[in-house]
Amino acid sequence: MLGLKLETDPRWVNIVEKNIEEILTDHAYCEQKAASNALSIMIGFPYHTDLVDEMVKLAKEELSHFEMVHQKIKDRGFKLGFERKDEYVGELYKFMRKGHQKEIVLIDRLLFGAMIEARSCERFKILSEQINDEDLKTFYKDLMISEATHYTLFIGFARKYGNHVEDIEKRWQQWLNFEADLIKKFGKKETIHG
Amino acid sequence: MLGLKLETDPRWVNIVEKNIEEILTDHAYCEQKAASNALSIMIGFPYHTDLVDEMVKLAKEELSHFEMVHQKIKDRGFKLGFERKDEYVGELYKFMRKGHQKEIVLIDRLLFGAMIEARSCERFKILSEQINDEDLKTFYKDLMISEATHYTLFIGFARKYGNHVEDIEKRWQQWLNFEADLIKKFGKKETIHG
Repeated sequence: MLGLKLETDPRWVNIVEKNIEEILTDHAYCEQKAASNALSIMIGFPYHTDLVDEMVKLAKEELSHFEMVHQKIKDRGFKLGFERKDEYVGELYKFMRKGHQKEIVLIDRLLFGAMIEARSCERFKILSEQINDEDLKTFYKDLMISEATHYTLFIGFARKYGNHVEDIEKRWQQWLNFEADLIKKFGKKETIHG
Repeated sequence: MLGLKLETDPRWVNIVEKNIEEILTDHAYCEQKAASNALSIMIGFPYHTDLVDEMVKLAKEELSHFEMVHQKIKDRGFKLGFERKDEYVGELYKFMRKGHQKEIVLIDRLLFGAMIEARSCERFKILSEQINDEDLKTFYKDLMISEATHYTLFIGFARKYGNHVEDIEKRWQQWLNFEADLIKKFGKKETIHG
């Protein structure tokens, strides 16, 4: 799925459905962090006008998703908890090349975004198919489609602004290999990337 | 205006209208920083459900304003530049009480927001009345109204969640006095709070 080389541990969904409050709180913050990440890309590369437009649009969409998740939290009588640490994203962050020429930094910032969207898409697909909760099944199906669209957006910009400095497909394969190895450690916690 | 104790130096608008590209770029980042600040308040106090809802809604609105300003930048054949440092906001930031009990921290985070909205509102009013540019006159009139609404939102939450620990009107007067002294140093640069 979207190039991912290893599927999520099938036991993950059983862990998740035992703690809906936890997965929803974590999910809400995933949306907020995705919005903040999009803004951070915009701030770093303001001279790419189309990138600025699309990153701000993306940030707004992620915040709309936050609102949708927050509504689910309220509907079920829960309250948004504090932010959960996302170790998976922290490990992906380390794989980004920093302090290189601007174009290289931008490529990796975009592929980092694409990677998170791709795995989130897979996780949402699992939830949409397997979670023992009809309401959340529909909810995650819609969101899964958004994640796939965002993945395409990030990959597209990486090609547009990076293809003249390196082979984007080759670099993307390096990301996929790194992630396949990383994800083996996960699938054990009731968070979106846990 | 909104309780402000000192008006902006009348020469400021003449400095601004000589460098529209600069004021628009700075303004765009003011909107982004306002969005990020709203999200940061949300993250700090997730147990106040109505505050979470309103801060995320505010962040989305600020990003819509960013888009409007970015459109003005594009319409005029300019490009968004890099973020400008906001010394005024940096000085206000120092006035916030940090490391106190949670309620005190929240009060000052909200009054910090109210303060920036109040001064921005005054600056937008000046632009809407005096800038030598008919298009921007209308633009800033609409935005001025938004800033006043946001000011009311922040003050309202400070009263709601802070009135049981301290006198909010008294603390707000302290903010206004601090700001009146601070703003004397400004009004000399082509930025929104410069």
